[in-house]
Amino acid sequence: MSDQIGVTGLAVMGANLARNLARHGHQVVLHNRSRGRTDALVEQHGSEGDFVPTGSVEEFVGALQRPRKIIIMVQAGPATDAVIDEIAPLLDEGDVLMDGGNALFTDTIRRTEALTARGLHFVGTGISGGEEGALNGPSIMPGGSKEAYELVGPLLESIAAVVDGEPCCTHVGASGAGHFVKMVHNGIEYADMQLIAEAYDLLRQGLELTPAEIGDVFAGWNEGDLESYLIEITAQVLRHTDAESGGPFVDIVLDEAEQKGTGRWTVQSALDLGVPVSGIAEAVFARALSGHREQRQAAQKVLPGPDRQWDEQVADKDAFIESVRQALYASKVVAYAQGFDQITQGADHHGWDIDRAALAKIWRGGCIIRARFLDRISQVFTDEPDVTTLLTNDYFRGAVSEGQESWRQVVAGAARHGVPVPGFASALAYYDGLRAERLPAALIQGLRDLFGAHTYRRTDREGSFHTMWGEDGREVQTG
Amino acid sequence: MSDQIGVTGLAVMGANLARNLARHGHQVVLHNRSRGRTDALVEQHGSEGDFVPTGSVEEFVGALQRPRKIIIMVQAGPATDAVIDEIAPLLDEGDVLMDGGNALFTDTIRRTEALTARGLHFVGTGISGGEEGALNGPSIMPGGSKEAYELVGPLLESIAAVVDGEPCCTHVGASGAGHFVKMVHNGIEYADMQLIAEAYDLLRQGLELTPAEIGDVFAGWNEGDLESYLIEITAQVLRHTDAESGGPFVDIVLDEAEQKGTGRWTVQSALDLGVPVSGIAEAVFARALSGHREQRQAAQKVLPGPDRQWDEQVADKDAFIESVRQALYASKVVAYAQGFDQITQGADHHGWDIDRAALAKIWRGGCIIRARFLDRISQVFTDEPDVTTLLTNDYFRGAVSEGQESWRQVVAGAARHGVPVPGFASALAYYDGLRAERLPAALIQGLRDLFGAHTYRRTDREGSFHTMWGEDGREVQTG
Repeated sequence: MSDQIGVTGLAVMGANLARNLARHGHQVVLHNRSRGRTDALVEQHGSEGDFVPTGSVEEFVGALQRPRKIIIMVQAGPATDAVIDEIAPLLDEGDVLMDGGNALFTDTIRRTEALTARGLHFVGTGISGGEEGALNGPSIMPGGSKEAYELVGPLLESIAAVVDGEPCCTHVGASGAGHFVKMVHNGIEYADMQLIAEAYDLLRQGLELTPAEIGDVFAGWNEGDLESYLIEITAQVLRHTDAESGGPFVDIVLDEAEQKGTGRWTVQSALDLGVPVSGIAEAVFARALSGHREQRQAAQKVLPGPDRQWDEQVADKDAFIESVRQALYASKVVAYAQGFDQITQGADHHGWDIDRAALAKIWRGGCIIRARFLDRISQVFTDEPDVTTLLTNDYFRGAVSEGQESWRQVVAGAARHGVPVPGFASALAYYDGLRAERLPAALIQGLRDLFGAHTYRRTDREGSFHTMWGEDGREVQTG
Repeated sequence: MSDQIGVTGLAVMGANLARNLARHGHQVVLHNRSRGRTDALVEQHGSEGDFVPTGSVEEFVGALQRPRKIIIMVQAGPATDAVIDEIAPLLDEGDVLMDGGNALFTDTIRRTEALTARGLHFVGTGISGGEEGALNGPSIMPGGSKEAYELVGPLLESIAAVVDGEPCCTHVGASGAGHFVKMVHNGIEYADMQLIAEAYDLLRQGLELTPAEIGDVFAGWNEGDLESYLIEITAQVLRHTDAESGGPFVDIVLDEAEQKGTGRWTVQSALDLGVPVSGIAEAVFARALSGHREQRQAAQKVLPGPDRQWDEQVADKDAFIESVRQALYASKVVAYAQGFDQITQGADHHGWDIDRAALAKIWRGGCIIRARFLDRISQVFTDEPDVTTLLTNDYFRGAVSEGQESWRQVVAGAARHGVPVPGFASALAYYDGLRAERLPAALIQGLRDLFGAHTYRRTDREGSFHTMWGEDGREVQTG
């Protein structure tokens, strides 16, 4: 099963992926714009497998057997285009170029079209798991033609994380499908972390627990439904002590979160698709808010909070902790339901045949959002392929409705006590909006008809209607 | 002061704008792709002023004196490009083309560059007020060079709405600035309507008032701080009876709201600029949710709500109404603060010199969000040009903090009773986030450093740091 592959771009992610490939018995032909990194990799890790260092791009391509398999591990954007432009002219028909960076999926669609026209295969490949995943087994989301996947799939599967004996790598769909689902994965990751941060904030402010004590709470949660990598490392970070100050690590970290673009892309794409991903949007905006230092400093000085102590709600400490856990889980279910909606709509819009059950399975390991409950999600899409939202599935409905009273009390308590919980509150509003028999959207339609003659539909018969607001208020049918 | 102008595109908006121009004494040269609309306009409204109907584009351009002033009133997008491509080759250096459609501001930037290179002026002009505004006085937001504004400004100012003797038209800034602020205007309009809808829903569910009774409440609100066109027409829509059913009009309107793109664009642009416009995003998503009929039908069948009656909170009916009013006003202030943030950041990013005080003034009349409190906003930017957020201004801080207890109780009550208030809740979370001395963003930075070596900053000294999580947990400075 050993194969040959070329890796170009040997910064940490590329180098680790190359080592992972070599450790799995593949011959890895190495290339980097500057030769130093190539030599350093061979020098430090040459004993791990069969590396072939090369200098020029011509030497790199020449060292590969046809059909060549090359994975590009450079920065998304212009750098990726530059590498493609340099390598593609040297390739032969049927060769496969993979892009393992965090490309915007529309760029991947464009590149796939251009390279396909030249007789080359292009596989936009989402890779999640950070540096550690790249080295020891990431979750891999390749998009491209079936033919291309047959050529490189076994190779990618061989280095992916493994859960229950199955590799965390599957052919996601054609063209940009791989990078699209990787983008949504990252969006869900934003929402997940924001919800965790809100739970931490509530426990800190409501119960005045120390970060280490809250770390213990998270460690406990990691034994149940919430079991996941992010919950696990939250415990680790919260228990960590800053050597310099001797105090909790989290207290010396500047509270200005950064974002690298995929969260923003997810929301922008969801807006184009008309899919409400409010949990992801609130997470992206919460980070943006945290980074507006001047506004925050001005606001801190003058904006008052509520004049209230946490009282009855936290009198039973364990009960409050359990309420926050249920609120976190319910909100998390909503975030995943929204993310999978985006995948469903994106697949539909772009004509990609995405197997959501298989996708949920490959997110069980290797990637940042890996979690026990992805098995449940996979099961839903296996059992109910036509399900319109994860929330109506028996298991998830049960989980959410069982916790809904806690969820409501936690959101209400946060609002009353001045703890910002945009993620929890938005998820609850989404849940209540989805189940509402009547939404006040009817009023909005009436307003739009009045000021802009945008027309409305009626509940009792087909057609489009307009009321002559400025005249006698009679209704006319317009369509 | 009478001038000459050409109008091409004579659907309702274009025809009404042409009539408005003619009524103000300008000679209006008319053109439409199909001649029928031109003739119909002259036949029906020819007596209102000096119209010059033309047939071909050549005839249209030939009938105009140099420097020619032409306003394009066709659909945004490819139709606008098609008209520009047809007319521009017939123009002479120094002529002015205006686009009065709802163009995406980045299209306007592109068109401005292309036409400027050909020696023509291009004025991307936001026009708000719907059909009625176009006829009787809209709010006009022209963007372009100073030289171009000198040529067409007086003409546009002559047909704009007038408030306190001042026309609702000002030179917004260069290039795409006019369409950019028009886009944000529409985004704010989305937020405003969503908040109104939530207030209505709460009064309906909490107090079991009839729509007409709630219309009376809104009419009362329109006498105070909330005085605005949208509040006024909300009363009108809620009081309206459906002739067919004899019941409240709002109850026969299908509760699936539509969106035409500018709300979505606003959020997408805000994401690019890193500005949290959560109120606008929640409004766009609430509309998207309302339109997902299949999901809603599935969810309505199985998702349970809370098992609770509205009780103490609504025992004092007038007090509850006043609480909802305060929650609405506070949330509205947040929505406008976010929208003006986007304008500040957009101006900064694109190098536009936007006078926000003047902009707030021209939104006082003609446009959909016209409201008494825009005078207040204008005053803030006059008095405190360096203000970082509207919320810290004495008046707005007072208004919000005065109402904060009600705001908190309303959001808490909605969460407990299952009324979806994504707009109210998101605005409150934003307020609490902005004023927080510490945000849990610090935890997010810690997680990102652990799984992705993204580094963090410290509260106690400059630099970028990384903790060796997988090793001995020591900290290294990385920058």
